Amino acid sequence: MRMYDIIDKKRLGLKLTKEEIAFFINGYTDGSIPDYQASAFLMAIAINGMDVEETTELTLLMAQSGEMLDLSVIKGVHVDKHSSGGVGDKTTLIIGPMVAALGVPVAKMSGRGLGHTGGTIDKLESIPGFNTSLSKETFYNNVNSIGLAVAGQTANLAPADKKLYALRDVTATVSSIPLIAASIMSKKLAAGADVIVLDVKTGSGAFMKTVESAKELARRMVDIGNNAGRKTYAVITDMNDPLGKAVGNALEVMEAIEALNGKGDKKLMEVVYRLASYMVFGAGKAESIDKAREMLEETITSGKALKVFADFVKAQGGDDRYVYDPSLFKLGTVCEDLKCDVSGYIKDIRSDEVGIASLILGAGRETKDSVIDPGVGLIIKKKTGDRVEIGETLATIYGNNTEKVKEASVRLRNSFDIGNDKTEPYKIIYDVVE
Amino acid sequence: MRMYDIIDKKRLGLKLTKEEIAFFINGYTDGSIPDYQASAFLMAIAINGMDVEETTELTLLMAQSGEMLDLSVIKGVHVDKHSSGGVGDKTTLIIGPMVAALGVPVAKMSGRGLGHTGGTIDKLESIPGFNTSLSKETFYNNVNSIGLAVAGQTANLAPADKKLYALRDVTATVSSIPLIAASIMSKKLAAGADVIVLDVKTGSGAFMKTVESAKELARRMVDIGNNAGRKTYAVITDMNDPLGKAVGNALEVMEAIEALNGKGDKKLMEVVYRLASYMVFGAGKAESIDKAREMLEETITSGKALKVFADFVKAQGGDDRYVYDPSLFKLGTVCEDLKCDVSGYIKDIRSDEVGIASLILGAGRETKDSVIDPGVGLIIKKKTGDRVEIGETLATIYGNNTEKVKEASVRLRNSFDIGNDKTEPYKIIYDVVE
Repeated sequence: MRMYDIIDKKRLGLKLTKEEIAFFINGYTDGSIPDYQASAFLMAIAINGMDVEETTELTLLMAQSGEMLDLSVIKGVHVDKHSSGGVGDKTTLIIGPMVAALGVPVAKMSGRGLGHTGGTIDKLESIPGFNTSLSKETFYNNVNSIGLAVAGQTANLAPADKKLYALRDVTATVSSIPLIAASIMSKKLAAGADVIVLDVKTGSGAFMKTVESAKELARRMVDIGNNAGRKTYAVITDMNDPLGKAVGNALEVMEAIEALNGKGDKKLMEVVYRLASYMVFGAGKAESIDKAREMLEETITSGKALKVFADFVKAQGGDDRYVYDPSLFKLGTVCEDLKCDVSGYIKDIRSDEVGIASLILGAGRETKDSVIDPGVGLIIKKKTGDRVEIGETLATIYGNNTEKVKEASVRLRNSFDIGNDKTEPYKIIYDVVE
Repeated sequence: MRMYDIIDKKRLGLKLTKEEIAFFINGYTDGSIPDYQASAFLMAIAINGMDVEETTELTLLMAQSGEMLDLSVIKGVHVDKHSSGGVGDKTTLIIGPMVAALGVPVAKMSGRGLGHTGGTIDKLESIPGFNTSLSKETFYNNVNSIGLAVAGQTANLAPADKKLYALRDVTATVSSIPLIAASIMSKKLAAGADVIVLDVKTGSGAFMKTVESAKELARRMVDIGNNAGRKTYAVITDMNDPLGKAVGNALEVMEAIEALNGKGDKKLMEVVYRLASYMVFGAGKAESIDKAREMLEETITSGKALKVFADFVKAQGGDDRYVYDPSLFKLGTVCEDLKCDVSGYIKDIRSDEVGIASLILGAGRETKDSVIDPGVGLIIKKKTGDRVEIGETLATIYGNNTEKVKEASVRLRNSFDIGNDKTEPYKIIYDVVE
């Protein structure tokens, strides 16, 4: 078998066999297939596509290129949630305690990516003392006793994906449905969950700009998951305007705590309930989605979810007083309100611009070496469809540097599109694929 | 400008600007654009194509990546011929003296490629003393005095093509009409001719297997040449069965001399006349193609072309007695006739298998370091459509090693397809594109 012939076959748009895909993944992972052949192959896939069978094989082989986690030490059905990323997305912090309160174990290994805010780990580390460097034993013990643990990713999951992603990123082959699906699902399969719930975001602030492309990606990922023997659901959610009000690390933890106290933002909670319902239903803890939702609502009203969160924070060394009194969080000292300079209706709040404002303040990482400032960020006070008058506060910015707050403020103002006509807010959930 | 965006544009099938193509060619030639980006880009071109305007820009930029020859020291209109390569193709050795005899200067710089026989230079070096390492001065003087000179290529012509070809060769992006056209034409444009005549071969022994694909390539190359201000013609010729009877270095020179003596094989001479007619007409030496052909026929009957060949051989240090007495050539001493083992009609003689037989004997180069044996090769005695009886000689093999002659003989026998029904011979010329 020669890589040349495999590339040529995909150049002609033909279907590849399992053996051919394995030859590529194994050869590229061990370095015997050079980057220049891999990039030509990836471009042929990006243009000519791969069918569900090919994509499933690719995904499984990428998953098997590294460690495959065995979660059997954790009791119960293992459910994993994945979100394709969005501005202000703190759903994991809310959903984790909620489903754990219903007996669905959450064993989350998380990385520290680049982005407009930190990842889940960075957000949790804004709680003084919180520690994510857990031994495997502590990690599994905490999941079994509290129902929830979050640790930094130490396992070598899907190294083929890591290498391929770096190459796609510089060869304009990122936006390919089969390659995106294989990248996301290979890590999920390697992480060992029995049930996978995917949050596929769509809109101006998401990678998938249209609902159609989001559905196509969702369909492909669900097919791969089901083909690989994992029950998989995908919820298509809106990412035109930001999710919730807070963008920043401590600010998002504070908003999550607010939500666990029953005071969550409507759009945020709708996404939370939908995703969490499929997790609870998928784990066999409820006989229907509607029943799961009822049970989840009860974890909030009863205070059970908040209690799980506090226990979880304490078990990982964090100061649980912050959970009960979020005013303890130290926020940026340069605080500025963004005032509205025209009257009218908010037609749109562009998430991508909000994300950049957050990055400018220091809430996220531009490069791997960037240091995150946990106390900075912003709170959006208005939402799409709202009537606003001159002088009203659109958002509050928390920073630690006057210059950067000014710069972020200009950027944030640009994210608000204000016009004369009232606009309907975006839908929150577009579809569910199962 | 970023290479990423240029790749992405071609991934989407969009048309590139001159500046974008220049950014790629300059960056890839100077090494600032890495192979893995170039190969992704080439694959996007191979699948999504390039229009005539884009291909012309690409070709010109590749030509300008190195030395652009200035042929103004040579008197007259400069005509260049290019053949896309074929088994038994000795047309250059015959056409050169013929058109030179009519005042069309032939200044040929030639390389030593890989193949089933050597290139034009290797063939000529089978004449004792023949020297192709000429100074520029001698080269140009010989062209001006005799009309014909052949030298090894020393100029740095189209280095971008060299680098790109090496990458295409390992990434399955060779078979792309715009990339093939740009590769061939960039070298022709850099070589400085005013008129370009292309021999585009089609059939089992050619790169273009179908007449349609050969026409498409021809059309593209002619458009590029004309767009670049060079009068360009392309003749689509057959390469199903070999061209002429001899395959090998000395053997092909001997067949060329036979042709210059008026005893050339019909198919070979038809190709020779068509190509040469366009050269003579393109150089303005005849008012029509028909008139050019008449004049060319006269160079053979009068002995003028043979005389030019002898003068040319002598001027480059070769022993011109070989031209007048080809029996002086030393051929392989292991000589074997391939006898026919069935009776019937020859339906096909597969050029690619004949080429491999020649390579086995030692007539060509498998790797850059292979040493060519000038005396080995084969003479095909029958042609497609001929009736053959058991025991008749199909071909004569000349080798210097009994084992290799045996191996070549088996291979050569495989190239003959003999059946019960009489088959029509292939057409010789399929079309002319101008």
